[in-house]
Amino acid sequence: RLALPVFAADPVSSVAWATQEILVILALGGTALLVLAPEVALAVCVVIAIVVVSYGPLVRAYPGGGGSFAVASRNLGPRAGLVAAASLLVDYTLTVAVAVAAAVDNLVSALPVLDDGRIPLAVASVLVVAAVNLRGRREAGWSAMVPVYGFVLAVAVLVTVGLVRWAGGEGPVAVSADFDVDRGTDLTAVALALVVLRAFASGGAALAGVDATANGVPAFRAPKGRNAAVTLLAVGGLSIALIAGVVTLAVVSGVTVTRDPCDLQGLPVPCEEYTQQSVLTQLSQAVFGAGSVGAVLVTVATVLALLTAANSAFNGFPLLAATLAEAGYLPRQLARRGDRLAYSNGILALSLGAVTMLLVLEARVGPLLDLYLIGLFTSFTLAQLGMVRHWRLRQGRSRRTRRWVPRLGTAVAAVAATCTGLTLLVLVVAKVPNGAWATLLVVAALGVGMHRVRGHYDLVSRETAIPADEAPETMPARVHAVVLVSRLHRPTTRALAYARATRPSTLEAVTVAVDQEAARELSEEWARRKVPVPLRVLDSPYREVAKPLVEHVKAVRAKGPRDAVTVFLPEYVVAHWWEAVLHNRSNLWLRARLAATPGVMVVSVPYQLRSSIEEGDLAARAAADRSLVQEASRAGAADRDIERHP
Amino acid sequence: RLALPVFAADPVSSVAWATQEILVILALGGTALLVLAPEVALAVCVVIAIVVVSYGPLVRAYPGGGGSFAVASRNLGPRAGLVAAASLLVDYTLTVAVAVAAAVDNLVSALPVLDDGRIPLAVASVLVVAAVNLRGRREAGWSAMVPVYGFVLAVAVLVTVGLVRWAGGEGPVAVSADFDVDRGTDLTAVALALVVLRAFASGGAALAGVDATANGVPAFRAPKGRNAAVTLLAVGGLSIALIAGVVTLAVVSGVTVTRDPCDLQGLPVPCEEYTQQSVLTQLSQAVFGAGSVGAVLVTVATVLALLTAANSAFNGFPLLAATLAEAGYLPRQLARRGDRLAYSNGILALSLGAVTMLLVLEARVGPLLDLYLIGLFTSFTLAQLGMVRHWRLRQGRSRRTRRWVPRLGTAVAAVAATCTGLTLLVLVVAKVPNGAWATLLVVAALGVGMHRVRGHYDLVSRETAIPADEAPETMPARVHAVVLVSRLHRPTTRALAYARATRPSTLEAVTVAVDQEAARELSEEWARRKVPVPLRVLDSPYREVAKPLVEHVKAVRAKGPRDAVTVFLPEYVVAHWWEAVLHNRSNLWLRARLAATPGVMVVSVPYQLRSSIEEGDLAARAAADRSLVQEASRAGAADRDIERHP
Ligand SMILES: [K+]
Ligand SMILES: [K+]
Ligand SMILES: [K+]
Ligand SMILES: [K+]
Ligand SMILES: [K+]
Ligand SMILES: [K+]
Repeated sequence: RLALPVFAADPVSSVAWATQEILVILALGGTALLVLAPEVALAVCVVIAIVVVSYGPLVRAYPGGGGSFAVASRNLGPRAGLVAAASLLVDYTLTVAVAVAAAVDNLVSALPVLDDGRIPLAVASVLVVAAVNLRGRREAGWSAMVPVYGFVLAVAVLVTVGLVRWAGGEGPVAVSADFDVDRGTDLTAVALALVVLRAFASGGAALAGVDATANGVPAFRAPKGRNAAVTLLAVGGLSIALIAGVVTLAVVSGVTVTRDPCDLQGLPVPCEEYTQQSVLTQLSQAVFGAGSVGAVLVTVATVLALLTAANSAFNGFPLLAATLAEAGYLPRQLARRGDRLAYSNGILALSLGAVTMLLVLEARVGPLLDLYLIGLFTSFTLAQLGMVRHWRLRQGRSRRTRRWVPRLGTAVAAVAATCTGLTLLVLVVAKVPNGAWATLLVVAALGVGMHRVRGHYDLVSRETAIPADEAPETMPARVHAVVLVSRLHRPTTRALAYARATRPSTLEAVTVAVDQEAARELSEEWARRKVPVPLRVLDSPYREVAKPLVEHVKAVRAKGPRDAVTVFLPEYVVAHWWEAVLHNRSNLWLRARLAATPGVMVVSVPYQLRSSIEEGDLAARAAADRSLVQEASRAGAADRDIERHP
Repeated sequence: RLALPVFAADPVSSVAWATQEILVILALGGTALLVLAPEVALAVCVVIAIVVVSYGPLVRAYPGGGGSFAVASRNLGPRAGLVAAASLLVDYTLTVAVAVAAAVDNLVSALPVLDDGRIPLAVASVLVVAAVNLRGRREAGWSAMVPVYGFVLAVAVLVTVGLVRWAGGEGPVAVSADFDVDRGTDLTAVALALVVLRAFASGGAALAGVDATANGVPAFRAPKGRNAAVTLLAVGGLSIALIAGVVTLAVVSGVTVTRDPCDLQGLPVPCEEYTQQSVLTQLSQAVFGAGSVGAVLVTVATVLALLTAANSAFNGFPLLAATLAEAGYLPRQLARRGDRLAYSNGILALSLGAVTMLLVLEARVGPLLDLYLIGLFTSFTLAQLGMVRHWRLRQGRSRRTRRWVPRLGTAVAAVAATCTGLTLLVLVVAKVPNGAWATLLVVAALGVGMHRVRGHYDLVSRETAIPADEAPETMPARVHAVVLVSRLHRPTTRALAYARATRPSTLEAVTVAVDQEAARELSEEWARRKVPVPLRVLDSPYREVAKPLVEHVKAVRAKGPRDAVTVFLPEYVVAHWWEAVLHNRSNLWLRARLAATPGVMVVSVPYQLRSSIEEGDLAARAAADRSLVQEASRAGAADRDIERHP
């Protein structure tokens, strides 16, 4: 089964930061609160179990994928769906940011000299993962297996060895076991309770990957729903076992960690110079010894698993974005699962978001998690509420003897919704420092934005739809060709020849006299060379090109409102981007102005400069040019039916 | 005479920083070297006099403007001309940076609380001056008059009052009179000599504006050359008088300034907290009293004059860039004097350069001047060498009795060239710290870049020129129309109708099956609606649009190499930029790929969404639509001569 490691990377590697965060948040209440760590971890494990169980029916009911977005929008309406979708987009971004920040944190724990390089290391990691994904991701299944199973194995051995030694009376002692936390005496009972609940919520963030699995159902082998549900159970079981083991070991070995090392007492050096080690690093060094092979292996396995988790978000985000874009909520550039360009756009958007988060929050796991929690529990709660609704609707339609299925489903979903909803409530009440409102704002802005994008596409779709009984669009009565000319050179004569080939009703060359002198010279050369198309000179008192041309086009069309005007623009095709800067610049503005004028077609007649053509094509062009000349001398000009513009 | 204040702003306001820089550089050699200030100032005045006199014949000989670029390229060849041009472009940029930095320096001297805001103040000043110039510059002459005459008057009164008081025995005493400079004892005689020469060169930078005047000759009233020469003499005389006066007053009142306040001894506070005042601020406070109306007026006049100098560069730079662009050395977007867009582009380029310099060198006058000097004296020397050549060539052609004119001219130019060339040599030998090589690199890169741009334009021009005896470009034998379709909606039917109106030899609609499902639905709807144009579905195994289409176009053209293919692209026209993001994105890449394919025309058929059309136009469009429908029911389809693609 390749699916397990791919989807397990995110929730399983979360153990690395979730266990640590339970201890860090509890430490906000002082050393005394740390004794509650096992209880909080137990609560987290229970919630994971409930959510995993409740997601089983969800993935079976929605084998098309989409997770909380699909469930919420189908059962709770499009608004709830949009909120869920916005939360999910933000969550994917933060999954990358948190996983990468945690990976760097574990790396720095093992190699403290890298402490000053956290931000560049994190940003570089995101860019590397993005680059790997941009180049293709055929072997995602296999490449996820080693890090995920390696991480599970490493932590399992660590916990087993550690607990066996503890049972034998020689328990491991963490480097931070003697530190004290200088806090807590001044907190009220309510504040302390909120701290405990927040620790529980932070640990519960380990659930994040569950929703990604629900989103990814279509990637499973058939029977998809069943396989996805089994995978979820396996992932949930693994997560629970690892969290329980790591927290127990952390408590017995006395690990003490805080967000800010200056909150610790008993440090060997001034707190500004002290680099705190991650929980897993402290445990592995306590059990296997600092610098031992075992400790190094645990760090390597943790870093790789976390990077694999970040990578899994790079698989999921473009798929979700494509789903949303297909539903008209995001720009079409992101649309269609499997479209290479859309996939690249999704990866770029995700990288940009994750790098921004890492830069703003200085690649610190804690503040990133604060942002993460609100969005995460919003989408969980919406998904579970959706499932409650889903089962209610089924209850009426099922056979009498099978009524217990929807009833049980409703009960499970209701319990899960209550758990996640209460957690969300706690987070909002505790006003997760700095994080909550920023996340809510971004989710709201994303939701409103997606709503407006959909509105625009709907409007355009209604406006451009053709009623079944409508007469077909009629052809313009006559087509007037206008060739914009600035000099008399090959690009111009090619444009003239092509314009004549389209056999317009009228044909004229037009030049805008930005420079009077140059315009007069052009007129003279035009006459001298006897160009068989009349040249009209448009005045330009303000030295503009677009305005006089647009006005002329409107004047031509005013004579026949059912006519169309074709404006031919000679254009250079060059080989290098820097050459492109040297040509055709004014055309962009001109094209926009012309496009906004009704009844106009804008024709680019490219002239390929030699440097832009490959060797083989050059020979072909020379041959074509020769045959054109022969043809011309044989047949003469074939422009009988062109009536000249007066 | 309005010309005087406009061109005087730059050289006259230079007095503010040039006098200060003489003292600052001399202080590098210790307090003792400051006694040489009058001698250095005298040498500077002599050089100014020589250069101003030698520029008289130059502006008379080149009334078309262009200054050292014109003189060097005509007399010394295009390479020398390019070096002069590159130096001038860099000099204009540094004129803005130095003037603005000096203005901020004088402002901060009067209001030391602003000391931490130097960089933002300088950047904001550049942006304000740029914005004013972008909006138009009709009143440049009048608006320059008040600041320039105000500055001259303020400094003249300051010097007069100060020297009169000194003569009366009650000389003013500068706030820095008691400071000592902690340097110099360890310098060798050669090093001391170099310091003195560098002080001389820094003071000589006050010449900068002279070349700008030579560039601006066309802006003078007739007789242009004569008026420009007279203006130059007046400006030179003013500059000499002001420099002599300010330096004398500075010496008698004991002004002591250094680049770094920590080089000073005897400061009342730690040097990190001490804000040095500019020479003019110190003098005005010594003569009129700190906080007096007189001192405030001097500061205001100085700041305004310096900003006017920066503004004058904004007048000159776009003109020089236009001259260079007309000669093919810069992109065409900068070309044509008087073209509004070119003028805006020039202002943007200058602002960008000046802001970059200010940010990199933290808005400090000294380091900016180091960059300035090399470029400045390079262009001066080239101009004077050009004039030597110019007079030599004339010597042979003039009448015997008038031979003294070219001989005198040669002598003056030779003396001036020697002065500026020796200064340049000193600067290169002294390796002006940090500045010299950066400037040389930028000048070289600009020169090579302009050479390559010109080379590209020349190549294109040769390649696209039409020999007089060549047969006119023949029309393509047949035109095949291909309409790219993704859905069947109004933009598509409009594109089909327009394509039919151009009466192509063959016509087909083409859809690229990026999504098999969508392509099948489109085919079915196409058949159901009985669209009178055949639809071809192109396979796209890699979900690309451009490649299958380009290959199809090549295949169509392969059947008739003398044929042309017209590709019609339906396009949306929207009202807001954010809506544009939602449409037509893939067209950019597609257009580029199609344009690189020989024998192709690319036609945009814009479909204006209602929101993009103004009220009046909407009514007109409704009327046109009605008449189209009537016309259609009356006449029926008029597409007799379209032979369908097999
Ligand atoms: K961690
Ligand atoms: K996670
Ligand atoms: K996730
Ligand atoms: K100054
Ligand atoms: K200057
Ligand atoms: K200048």
